[in-house]
Amino acid sequence: MTGEIRCAAIGLGRLGYWHAENLQTKVKSAKLVKVVSSRTETAEKAARELGVEGWTTNPNEVFTDPNIDAVIISTPTDTHAQYVKMAAQFGKHIFVEKPIAKSVEDARELVRLVEESGITCQVGFMRRFDPAYAEAKKRIDAGDIGKPIYFKGVSRDPASPPESYIKHSGGIFLDLAVHDFDIARYLMGSEVRSVRSMGSVQLHPFMNEYLDVDQALSYLNFESGATGDVESSRNAGYGYDIRGEVIGTEGTIQISSLKHHDLRILNRRGSSHDIIPEFATKFKDAFLLEMVHFIDCLRNGTKPSCTEVDGLRALEIAKAATDAYLSNKEIIL
Amino acid sequence: MTGEIRCAAIGLGRLGYWHAENLQTKVKSAKLVKVVSSRTETAEKAARELGVEGWTTNPNEVFTDPNIDAVIISTPTDTHAQYVKMAAQFGKHIFVEKPIAKSVEDARELVRLVEESGITCQVGFMRRFDPAYAEAKKRIDAGDIGKPIYFKGVSRDPASPPESYIKHSGGIFLDLAVHDFDIARYLMGSEVRSVRSMGSVQLHPFMNEYLDVDQALSYLNFESGATGDVESSRNAGYGYDIRGEVIGTEGTIQISSLKHHDLRILNRRGSSHDIIPEFATKFKDAFLLEMVHFIDCLRNGTKPSCTEVDGLRALEIAKAATDAYLSNKEIIL
Amino acid sequence: MTGEIRCAAIGLGRLGYWHAENLQTKVKSAKLVKVVSSRTETAEKAARELGVEGWTTNPNEVFTDPNIDAVIISTPTDTHAQYVKMAAQFGKHIFVEKPIAKSVEDARELVRLVEESGITCQVGFMRRFDPAYAEAKKRIDAGDIGKPIYFKGVSRDPASPPESYIKHSGGIFLDLAVHDFDIARYLMGSEVRSVRSMGSVQLHPFMNEYLDVDQALSYLNFESGATGDVESSRNAGYGYDIRGEVIGTEGTIQISSLKHHDLRILNRRGSSHDIIPEFATKFKDAFLLEMVHFIDCLRNGTKPSCTEVDGLRALEIAKAATDAYLSNKEIIL
Amino acid sequence: MTGEIRCAAIGLGRLGYWHAENLQTKVKSAKLVKVVSSRTETAEKAARELGVEGWTTNPNEVFTDPNIDAVIISTPTDTHAQYVKMAAQFGKHIFVEKPIAKSVEDARELVRLVEESGITCQVGFMRRFDPAYAEAKKRIDAGDIGKPIYFKGVSRDPASPPESYIKHSGGIFLDLAVHDFDIARYLMGSEVRSVRSMGSVQLHPFMNEYLDVDQALSYLNFESGATGDVESSRNAGYGYDIRGEVIGTEGTIQISSLKHHDLRILNRRGSSHDIIPEFATKFKDAFLLEMVHFIDCLRNGTKPSCTEVDGLRALEIAKAATDAYLSNKEIIL
Repeated sequence: MTGEIRCAAIGLGRLGYWHAENLQTKVKSAKLVKVVSSRTETAEKAARELGVEGWTTNPNEVFTDPNIDAVIISTPTDTHAQYVKMAAQFGKHIFVEKPIAKSVEDARELVRLVEESGITCQVGFMRRFDPAYAEAKKRIDAGDIGKPIYFKGVSRDPASPPESYIKHSGGIFLDLAVHDFDIARYLMGSEVRSVRSMGSVQLHPFMNEYLDVDQALSYLNFESGATGDVESSRNAGYGYDIRGEVIGTEGTIQISSLKHHDLRILNRRGSSHDIIPEFATKFKDAFLLEMVHFIDCLRNGTKPSCTEVDGLRALEIAKAATDAYLSNKEIIL
Repeated sequence: MTGEIRCAAIGLGRLGYWHAENLQTKVKSAKLVKVVSSRTETAEKAARELGVEGWTTNPNEVFTDPNIDAVIISTPTDTHAQYVKMAAQFGKHIFVEKPIAKSVEDARELVRLVEESGITCQVGFMRRFDPAYAEAKKRIDAGDIGKPIYFKGVSRDPASPPESYIKHSGGIFLDLAVHDFDIARYLMGSEVRSVRSMGSVQLHPFMNEYLDVDQALSYLNFESGATGDVESSRNAGYGYDIRGEVIGTEGTIQISSLKHHDLRILNRRGSSHDIIPEFATKFKDAFLLEMVHFIDCLRNGTKPSCTEVDGLRALEIAKAATDAYLSNKEIIL
Repeated sequence: MTGEIRCAAIGLGRLGYWHAENLQTKVKSAKLVKVVSSRTETAEKAARELGVEGWTTNPNEVFTDPNIDAVIISTPTDTHAQYVKMAAQFGKHIFVEKPIAKSVEDARELVRLVEESGITCQVGFMRRFDPAYAEAKKRIDAGDIGKPIYFKGVSRDPASPPESYIKHSGGIFLDLAVHDFDIARYLMGSEVRSVRSMGSVQLHPFMNEYLDVDQALSYLNFESGATGDVESSRNAGYGYDIRGEVIGTEGTIQISSLKHHDLRILNRRGSSHDIIPEFATKFKDAFLLEMVHFIDCLRNGTKPSCTEVDGLRALEIAKAATDAYLSNKEIIL
Repeated sequence: MTGEIRCAAIGLGRLGYWHAENLQTKVKSAKLVKVVSSRTETAEKAARELGVEGWTTNPNEVFTDPNIDAVIISTPTDTHAQYVKMAAQFGKHIFVEKPIAKSVEDARELVRLVEESGITCQVGFMRRFDPAYAEAKKRIDAGDIGKPIYFKGVSRDPASPPESYIKHSGGIFLDLAVHDFDIARYLMGSEVRSVRSMGSVQLHPFMNEYLDVDQALSYLNFESGATGDVESSRNAGYGYDIRGEVIGTEGTIQISSLKHHDLRILNRRGSSHDIIPEFATKFKDAFLLEMVHFIDCLRNGTKPSCTEVDGLRALEIAKAATDAYLSNKEIIL
């Protein structure tokens, strides 16, 4: 495509608003022409603040608008499938937040529809765009650690989302570990063949009702013969703790620290530095860079580094992990 | 001021282009309406790339243009005084790169002119806007380390600029240490009363001709009674090494590390991470944030946190340091 | 006991010699009076080097010698049970290397025998004496991280022991992970209730023959409700990588880094430091401190912080982990 | 020499007792046969605790005792010269604490006497034996950073010694910076040609009376053309902060961190670790290793890596630094 990419942002929650703001104020060659929220005030306010000409509470207006090239879908998980379908049907390019759908069946259908329609679809696995993860991928591909043999991921949220969110979240493997499942496939350069998962409720008893846990561990077998583990937690009151590690035959690469500001204070209580408090701080650059990548792909006609197929694969692993946890058995993908 | 701030960028070297690009693509409420370079192609190309309507090789066009609110001066040091003067005369707000002038006399006159004209003037000491330095200032002001008693600064460039630049640079104290002199005043909350400086030529024999050095040390006495030292070097082939430390009566605060990507590789040769290679990588955020601050000040009618007076003060210290080095004596300010 | 504790060292392999040397040259109030090895030259040489008056190839000489107070057993794992039994029978105090026995049945009998005999028995879980682990225990007990909810352990050997050792080692859970199982119980302040284990062979195909693996993961349920995971590896060619972490309700504590010498080199390839190469370097202090503790306990008539019961408990977990791996099922202890 | 080296420890203050204890309990082939203190109880108690047969309050007894091979002198600085002289006269080998004497004249005479007598003399610059500094020396000598061009040292004491000590200490350059002066010569592989020094009193007004300071900076010119700076402070309430750095043409080497226990705690206040509190913790290994080296040199007839000449050189620099501070001038050595 040439000229400005005309975008609509559907869903204006915290992350949706952010994507909209990035597109409108920081991504060259993108123009936000419509913002959509189910709540009138939210849509109106966002349009005003971001200088967007159109707003609506009806997503259909976006899909049928011939002046719109691409949609950014940041709505609740259980609506992803329906909006992706419509976008494919009406030939709009898609950026959709993870997970691409709530069920593997839906995701498979979406992959089929997207492929048939010939549109471009990118899934919001922003870690791939984080400068540290991106550099790690480059170093691994360059052979700096030899052949990958073990993946080790940690994702600890400083707190659980509220019960109202957890209830519809699909569980910790789908909602949180899915980021590690995607980045594990990406960094290891291999698909996951089987999963085992374990978990417990430590600080949030309400999770028992939804068969969800706040502390989980998944064990992965990759097709390459490599293995790995992923810890997922909602209990890290001290901060947002994201770590990745790939052990190779010639060395290991460790990604990510917790340091927030690049300074430390030394006093009688010791030496200390502050900790990254939440995902927005940690992945600020990554959220912008994934949007830049999306627009670049549309302009250059290239495939995003993270497509609907990646969305499906990560979802399959997350579902297998959930089943493995519930059945206390190994699940083969 | 209300509405968009209409800016012109004078000087389109590496840093000048960057300021222009930040203003045009990333700073809300700013619009670049003219770019100026002494070379036709440079001006034309920048205008085209940044989507700026006007370009010229004649700075006067900018000062006399009633449609321009503010100028960004990123020209060689020895032209700063003349452009600041004209801007003051024509009532244009000013963002000027450090040092504000090459001589203390000029700088004093500029301070007078700027004050008389009532315009806003910000000097490009970007370290104040670096998130780590900004946080340090906040913590010091909050009393987290007690009363500051010693400042320790290190600024090491990975290499010397070419001889052609050094020749007109005013020397290492004016060109490099001036950043530490500014941040020292800022963090210590006190003016410098006297300076001693020492230096040597280690890797760049051509500097002898200009009475310049590539490895220097300055010792500072503050009016508060505190003291401090500043190391300045052009010899850090391993990277761009900027460190700041303030010792207080109740603790010490250490600013800045050298880590580039947030990852490390462990192999038979040890554990390693890459190092920030140069100033552009290190202070990318700071360069943007200082521009955001400048535009905010213009819109809100507030004083920048870093004015022509700060520019003068830092220059006075840098000149004293140069004299101290040349005379091998303590210089009282 | 008063006066010097008269000790005999049985087994003079690398670690056995070390214990002997520590006792003889660095532990006050201990005197080595006999060294025992199955090889004449080894015993003779150690006696000469350490200035010990007696040596023998027959352990029975030690047990029946009324002049010996305590024995240090550092022989191959499958002989531990027999020597502990004899020591208990003849009333010699015991320091025995981990694991206390190769089978849980033997270990249970040893616990009974030791208790009946009234002697003191310490098991060689040296991590408890490492200054970092010891400090962590103190901080956890002081409530610094609240109530422990998750344990995370990593033990990576730089290489596998030779096939001849692996063959008789009892497998990775018994030989390597047992250290994490012990320290997990110790730091979490709770017994392990059930275990799941997984593993793979990555770099040492010969392990398949012994149903052993070189990369393993164990998942632990504690009686307190806490959970945890332990990674065990023989594949860390970059160094000896031991990490421990306890997540609590109020914070997390991370133990151990890989840094060897306390210095780093910065050059064009980045910033690097060397890595601890092997267990002897890592736990040098711990090996001495556990011996000091043993002699102190004998002199003061106090119980070691790490007894035959701890030896049994860790072995039970290691055996359960092995069974869990082989059966691909959760094993309840 | 063959057989055990028979030593006497003169001076049983904190450091003197430590040397005595190390020799007696941890250094093979050394035997402490006499301990000397000006106070009866101190001498008697040390002899009893360390199992030494003889004690006295009269140092002469040591020098005239034909059964003593070597003396360890850890008395107040102003008595060093007199005891070194006597030791040289009576042919006793000498380990003497730094500085070797209080005046350069005395030190020169001692060098002459020691050389004439043919005895071995080692000065207590323990930093050379610290594993990190020792490794740095090895790496520098191996050319890992190219040719050294700048030395940067920091020595910060957590507090000032009491006024009673400061009064006789010779001042901060002689008492504290002397360690950096020695290690600078050692690591840079070059003698110091001239010194400038500056200082201030920040937290200890009583120092004014003795023309001493609690915060100082020295600037060094080496004969090789390299330069360097040394910060010395009594004001680091947060801990014992010792840092060394050598910049070379191909890289820089940074020695020493502040971390005490190898663990960190993360909680809502950030990530923190404890700080080495004082010299005894920091240089525990170094104090033992220098004593091992001394005894090894005596047994093998080799020259210590740190002799009376090194003691003299460091003292000359310290005196020049003191003069430079008092005269506010550069002092040529």
